[in-house]
Amino acid sequence: MTPIAEETPLPVSLEHVRAAAARLRGVAVRTPLLHDTPLDRLVGGRLLIKAEPLQRTGSFKFRGAYNAIAATTAPAVVAWSSGNHAQGVALAASLLGRRATIVMPADAPRIKQERTRALGAEVVLYDRVRESREAIGATIAERSGAAIVRPYDDPAVIAGQGTVGLEIVEQAMELGLVPDLAVVCCGGGGLIAGCATALRALLPDIRVYAAEPEGHDDTARSLARGERVANPPGVRSICDALLAPEPGELTFAINRRLLAGGLVVSDAEVRRAMALAFTELKVVVEPGGAVALAAVLAGRIDGRGKTVAVVLSGGNVDPDLYARVLQER
Amino acid sequence: MTPIAEETPLPVSLEHVRAAAARLRGVAVRTPLLHDTPLDRLVGGRLLIKAEPLQRTGSFKFRGAYNAIAATTAPAVVAWSSGNHAQGVALAASLLGRRATIVMPADAPRIKQERTRALGAEVVLYDRVRESREAIGATIAERSGAAIVRPYDDPAVIAGQGTVGLEIVEQAMELGLVPDLAVVCCGGGGLIAGCATALRALLPDIRVYAAEPEGHDDTARSLARGERVANPPGVRSICDALLAPEPGELTFAINRRLLAGGLVVSDAEVRRAMALAFTELKVVVEPGGAVALAAVLAGRIDGRGKTVAVVLSGGNVDPDLYARVLQER
Repeated sequence: MTPIAEETPLPVSLEHVRAAAARLRGVAVRTPLLHDTPLDRLVGGRLLIKAEPLQRTGSFKFRGAYNAIAATTAPAVVAWSSGNHAQGVALAASLLGRRATIVMPADAPRIKQERTRALGAEVVLYDRVRESREAIGATIAERSGAAIVRPYDDPAVIAGQGTVGLEIVEQAMELGLVPDLAVVCCGGGGLIAGCATALRALLPDIRVYAAEPEGHDDTARSLARGERVANPPGVRSICDALLAPEPGELTFAINRRLLAGGLVVSDAEVRRAMALAFTELKVVVEPGGAVALAAVLAGRIDGRGKTVAVVLSGGNVDPDLYARVLQER
Repeated sequence: MTPIAEETPLPVSLEHVRAAAARLRGVAVRTPLLHDTPLDRLVGGRLLIKAEPLQRTGSFKFRGAYNAIAATTAPAVVAWSSGNHAQGVALAASLLGRRATIVMPADAPRIKQERTRALGAEVVLYDRVRESREAIGATIAERSGAAIVRPYDDPAVIAGQGTVGLEIVEQAMELGLVPDLAVVCCGGGGLIAGCATALRALLPDIRVYAAEPEGHDDTARSLARGERVANPPGVRSICDALLAPEPGELTFAINRRLLAGGLVVSDAEVRRAMALAFTELKVVVEPGGAVALAAVLAGRIDGRGKTVAVVLSGGNVDPDLYARVLQER
């Protein structure tokens, strides 16, 4: 982590995040920053928990998608995703009066296909083994003039996700608090890059940590090495939302400068965090959305005596999996 | 429902609710008013969903308990409850530096006893069959000078719960909306009496409905008869938080004047509402807390084209029961 001022300007600034916040006002939910919860006692510090599962479409992805689509004039957009990005793009496009096409693997759960269609998008299925979703998406974009909405490696997407960090600062100030630390989950790195942009611009001394699942700690290892490294192929994780192969180019350029380091958690620690979010917070959190909380509860950073902002990033979890997590005791 | 102005003053006014809100500022969570959720489509109207499971101790009960205890000077308080009121009183007393004793049936789930003790209260167990909790509580109060914190039939408790209604109006105004209808669950009637006080003072044309489980529709029947009637004994319901034997005296005096009527739902409708709160809102809701949402989703009132405020009142639900509800499809 080097001082911010010494190097060339980053691709996303606080002003971009503020502009995104202005676009999202009255459109996105200003999700609550939960405080004074029973989890404080487990950590020995004060947790400020940003409950983004309560965002429209159930995850932060709506913010970045809306900001990116609002920034284009294209009459149509295309994206590839089987998860939260698909729903975020579908709803954002619908609200902005654009047609949306989502490229999704043919074996994606039917519920995800249905939800994306219910939000007004056309779903194009592809064969995960024999076809490339990027190639299909690029062809659709070329033929139809649709703008591609990338899941994370896009300044407008990063700025939109950064409104989570901006709200954390605003809401903490309303409580008269200043976070010492922030922990944010990290797949491709868009959410944490945006959050770190806002957090470190407004609170220069805050230390921002990426949280990742075991076997998918590409950002932690890339931060340690100072260059992007990929995950080994084939490692499974319960955190389906965080399985990007390597850090994004833009996101890593930001994260390399602004983050204090990476924290890694096991699936068992994630399941425990999901169960504690149920009993103590009453917020439904999906596995990938619980990684930052898991890192804090597992003591990967020392939160004692500190004010720690923690982002719960999404709540789109299969009911059967969730039921099993609740029954593990 | 008669015009408010014609009769004698009610025991709780908007000013009492505003005073409670001032006491609770920075102490209670200003829970979010969820809007633009996928449930709007099911109803054909616009739902504004007050997510009180995210309140401290997992239910609205903390608000009334804190307001009532802050209003006394007694060094100690006593209450009887095996549920949400117990935890609300325990935390409120602890924050206000008072000793708390909670009288709880000996067969209450161990987790509820433990949680109440963890919040700093002394738990006194009694035999549900042979002893009277009111008598035990009264004896403790007499011996120790403790103030009794009643679960609903107390003006300070009602005023505290009314801050839910006050926040609904404020948060709806922030969205540029005015609710036409409000639906609030009803056990003893404290939450809805407080909410109706604030809602009808600020929005005289709003129609406020009580929602109750089948077999425990004492308020619906009392409203229809114009006098308090009790529930038949022995009817079971999944809604353990709403099983008061009859409307409170004070609460019914208020509700008789301010409510538009009562709505009744089945356990199956409650379970469906809990499951939809999971998939669509990502908020954990207990059975009693889901009754108002169940009434709206089951079409007990016509929400088409209307703006409908709905209170989710609590989220303290047994994980095994919750898991079963999610797996019913």
